[in-house]
Amino acid sequence: MKILGRGLPAMAWLRQYSRKDLATDGMASFIATILLIPQSMGYAILAGLPAYLGLYASILPSIVYSLLGTSRSLAVGPVAITSMVTASVILPLAMPGSDAYVSLAILLAFVSGVFLVLMSLLKMGFLTNLLSHPVISGFISASAILIAVGQLKHLLGIQAHGNNLIELTQDMLRHADEINLPTFIISSLVVGLLVFFKKYLSKILKTLGLSSETANLLSKAGPVLVVVLTTVCVALLSLDQQGVKIVGQIHLALPSIDFTSLETDTLWALLPGAFLISVVGFVGSVSVAQSFAAKRKEDIQPNQELFGLGAANIASALSGAFPVTGGFSRTVVNTSAGAKTPMAGILTALFMLLVLFFLTPLFYYLPNAVLAASIIVAILQLVDVKDFIRIYHFSKQEALALAATFFVVLFVGMETGIIVGISLSLLFFLWHTSHPHIAVVGRVPGTEHFRNVQRYQVETTPNIVTIRIDENLFFANARVLEDYVLSLIAQQKDVKHIVLMCSAVNMIDASALDSLETISDRLNSAGVTLHFSEIKGPVMDKLRQSTLITNLTGQIFLTQHQAIQALSHPIEAQHQGE
Amino acid sequence: MKILGRGLPAMAWLRQYSRKDLATDGMASFIATILLIPQSMGYAILAGLPAYLGLYASILPSIVYSLLGTSRSLAVGPVAITSMVTASVILPLAMPGSDAYVSLAILLAFVSGVFLVLMSLLKMGFLTNLLSHPVISGFISASAILIAVGQLKHLLGIQAHGNNLIELTQDMLRHADEINLPTFIISSLVVGLLVFFKKYLSKILKTLGLSSETANLLSKAGPVLVVVLTTVCVALLSLDQQGVKIVGQIHLALPSIDFTSLETDTLWALLPGAFLISVVGFVGSVSVAQSFAAKRKEDIQPNQELFGLGAANIASALSGAFPVTGGFSRTVVNTSAGAKTPMAGILTALFMLLVLFFLTPLFYYLPNAVLAASIIVAILQLVDVKDFIRIYHFSKQEALALAATFFVVLFVGMETGIIVGISLSLLFFLWHTSHPHIAVVGRVPGTEHFRNVQRYQVETTPNIVTIRIDENLFFANARVLEDYVLSLIAQQKDVKHIVLMCSAVNMIDASALDSLETISDRLNSAGVTLHFSEIKGPVMDKLRQSTLITNLTGQIFLTQHQAIQALSHPIEAQHQGE
Repeated sequence: MKILGRGLPAMAWLRQYSRKDLATDGMASFIATILLIPQSMGYAILAGLPAYLGLYASILPSIVYSLLGTSRSLAVGPVAITSMVTASVILPLAMPGSDAYVSLAILLAFVSGVFLVLMSLLKMGFLTNLLSHPVISGFISASAILIAVGQLKHLLGIQAHGNNLIELTQDMLRHADEINLPTFIISSLVVGLLVFFKKYLSKILKTLGLSSETANLLSKAGPVLVVVLTTVCVALLSLDQQGVKIVGQIHLALPSIDFTSLETDTLWALLPGAFLISVVGFVGSVSVAQSFAAKRKEDIQPNQELFGLGAANIASALSGAFPVTGGFSRTVVNTSAGAKTPMAGILTALFMLLVLFFLTPLFYYLPNAVLAASIIVAILQLVDVKDFIRIYHFSKQEALALAATFFVVLFVGMETGIIVGISLSLLFFLWHTSHPHIAVVGRVPGTEHFRNVQRYQVETTPNIVTIRIDENLFFANARVLEDYVLSLIAQQKDVKHIVLMCSAVNMIDASALDSLETISDRLNSAGVTLHFSEIKGPVMDKLRQSTLITNLTGQIFLTQHQAIQALSHPIEAQHQGE
Repeated sequence: MKILGRGLPAMAWLRQYSRKDLATDGMASFIATILLIPQSMGYAILAGLPAYLGLYASILPSIVYSLLGTSRSLAVGPVAITSMVTASVILPLAMPGSDAYVSLAILLAFVSGVFLVLMSLLKMGFLTNLLSHPVISGFISASAILIAVGQLKHLLGIQAHGNNLIELTQDMLRHADEINLPTFIISSLVVGLLVFFKKYLSKILKTLGLSSETANLLSKAGPVLVVVLTTVCVALLSLDQQGVKIVGQIHLALPSIDFTSLETDTLWALLPGAFLISVVGFVGSVSVAQSFAAKRKEDIQPNQELFGLGAANIASALSGAFPVTGGFSRTVVNTSAGAKTPMAGILTALFMLLVLFFLTPLFYYLPNAVLAASIIVAILQLVDVKDFIRIYHFSKQEALALAATFFVVLFVGMETGIIVGISLSLLFFLWHTSHPHIAVVGRVPGTEHFRNVQRYQVETTPNIVTIRIDENLFFANARVLEDYVLSLIAQQKDVKHIVLMCSAVNMIDASALDSLETISDRLNSAGVTLHFSEIKGPVMDKLRQSTLITNLTGQIFLTQHQAIQALSHPIEAQHQGE
């Protein structure tokens, strides 16, 4: 942890923090707090938890990340994807609404936090690279649909649970006769209003003469307006008596967590989910951080980000809440409200704390359906069909990986979907590298350049064959080269020298080394000598430690040109005369 | 199946097959049959099956492979590793000695055969490349130890089963009081004799004036001599009455297989094991085939090999026997006996059939302990400590993959071991490629060559940074480049142009494309232009289908030299004057 060694990352901006900055950040935080309240509560409901835990999860984690993270813009708190995975992991283990469910959510945040900190300390951040772009894309689109469908129950005022589309739909149909009419009417109105605000409010405000920035920010306040309207409405008409589910009494005590009743099996069952939350949350968060940092030419350090997000999750667990990460919409709210430094995150947290202490009675009559509706309207934007089409035109295989991830997440489950997606990505990559481009090359007349004999008019030398392999040599393709070379000498019986041109080989592993030794031995016993040319520095460093070089009967040439000159020496004069 | 389209692979040698060849192959097959009888019966016992099934497995599969395979030397039949995996797969599902056990072995051969044929038809042979050299090495060493320990029970005359070293040892200790003294005495003598023959017989025969080749072949007859001696001994002393287990009556009917009682669960339980047998058997077989083919400059076609071995396994199932593959010791016996063509495999099979019909009474008193002892003596040679040391010096990571495979196979089980090994290999490879060598390069003065600025005295141009990445660009490292470039412009605020030199990039996938677009966008918003140079043909073909190129504000240069010339144009004169 280099950065920690130099003190908190926050020191970088805290040192030059001025009173003027404080005023700007303060104003921004005040606005952001108002906008983030319904969002945070909505994501808590999405996770299957009481709404007020969304506020809990927006306080301590935000402060911790502001001090430990390397992004100056990123806002950390409850986020749609991590909340959805939370629900998907805990649902099979506990009843939503039970104390056990809340305990497991807290535990999940804690374990995810520990995973992230461990990945940071062990520099294992590269594991997150396993999530290829097609897998993430398929996962997010399918999750968005799952989230939206999962929220429908709140819009209808019924109970329904399930880990995939089939389970969810079946459970909803089973409870179809329990639909609550007042809830349904409120939901329909709210969805209509939200879509209207989203699509037209900003335009209308602009035509009214407001600046583009103010108009955008105000249009984001749409949900807040809806929250106020519906809360008043429910309170005046006592709709909670008619079966409309409301946020209700908010407990200010930390939830009582009883880990003594926790079984080892449960912990094991949580581990894959916790890992998924860590990895998916981290990847999403870092992309958001990078996209905001680039504009300001700031430097995001992935390893420190792992640490910061890990600490934020542990902080969330300690405050009795659920997994958090850096979110795109939170960050947009933050920056468009005018936040300049991570101090805004700290101040937003403090405002949120004040809300929690003094203003919770205001949320008593807020209907859950409104929170659910705002999630649905926001989340469906994440379904990205264009991305599939784009990838399909670029690579059919990768489009297949995307589609497989999408459908498995939708119809089987999130964890299985991710595993299938990663496996397919790896498989296609291995397929690609195990079908490397191998070419026999010859010299472009009059130059020192060597090109594919099948594509260019080039000179070759009798009895000498030069093979160029355009791929790393490792276990996935080691035997391919072996097959190619041995097949070549079986077909061309007059070959005396084979030169392996390694200009595109960036690594050689033990399997490839083994194959090269086998090739060398077998060529020897067939009376053919194996040579190498243009081996890269780092590859040569590795080969020097091997018996391949000491047992090699042929030579190692710095350049392919030198190889051909040396090997064709006896007939070189004749060739130069051509 | 190109080759099948042109007729049987066997047509290549059958067309020019002469009467003289038949005489040579006939003599060789006669010798080979005698030598292969104890070996084949031993491997049947190793698989937990009646000894005579080893003879069954040596007939039809050998004929089928001779007609369909591409190797002229490879001998196909029961082999140590596949027999061991067979036992390890079936033991949890049925009692050794039961009819169900035999049925499952037959089914396993059939399913493995189908897997191999499918892999051939779908050209999925590259899947076998997943087995990296360290994983195979660790697997074979550990399996050899497991096999040897598993055979100990026959030497002691007790019952003991288990899938790993711990289970085996515990079960042997549990039955330690049942050790059969006559069996133990025979075993000790036999092991002593076999080791003596192995180490000294060949030398002694050579000092007696025999040619090196004859001496080696005769020393291979050591086990046959031991078989004869002990069989006579047991018969004369009626040691089978004293508890010495013997081969006994050999049934000539095909085993009655009852697949109707087979449950779907059982079939599912067999699948991973069948896949393991296919892959491990194929990899081992192809290496043996390649090593014998190279000497004769013959061409082994892996895809046709998959088909040939698959058909051989299906043939084995049809003859009521267990999984087979091409084996090293079988092939050595075959070629050193003087076999010239695959006809030897067919003739050996026919001799084996004659033995089965007319000579089985001779094996009645053959003790199982002798077969087990010859397996132990042969198999322990496969434990390869030197290979570990060699790999350790080449790569600590790969040595770790070998060690992990070794210990997990030994202490947990063969399938888990292979999975752990493959996962570690993939992980280390991904770790490697996700830490690519990235260098800022500059021009070697007076040349068109560009080298790492940290290693060479090179010229750089103000405001232009050229970055060379020495790795394929794909999901495992896409974000690494993103982090590198964005970090670079965060640190060097005066950069106006970034040139990405792609001379070592052999592939770009959708994730990398996404990262490149992100880099391009973010550089744009930071006022920096992104350019590319030296993109390879196949990579450029792919990029043309993407929006990266159409949205690129910078240029694509054929060579790095052109890039620097074009971008530094205003100050080029000054530079050339230096």
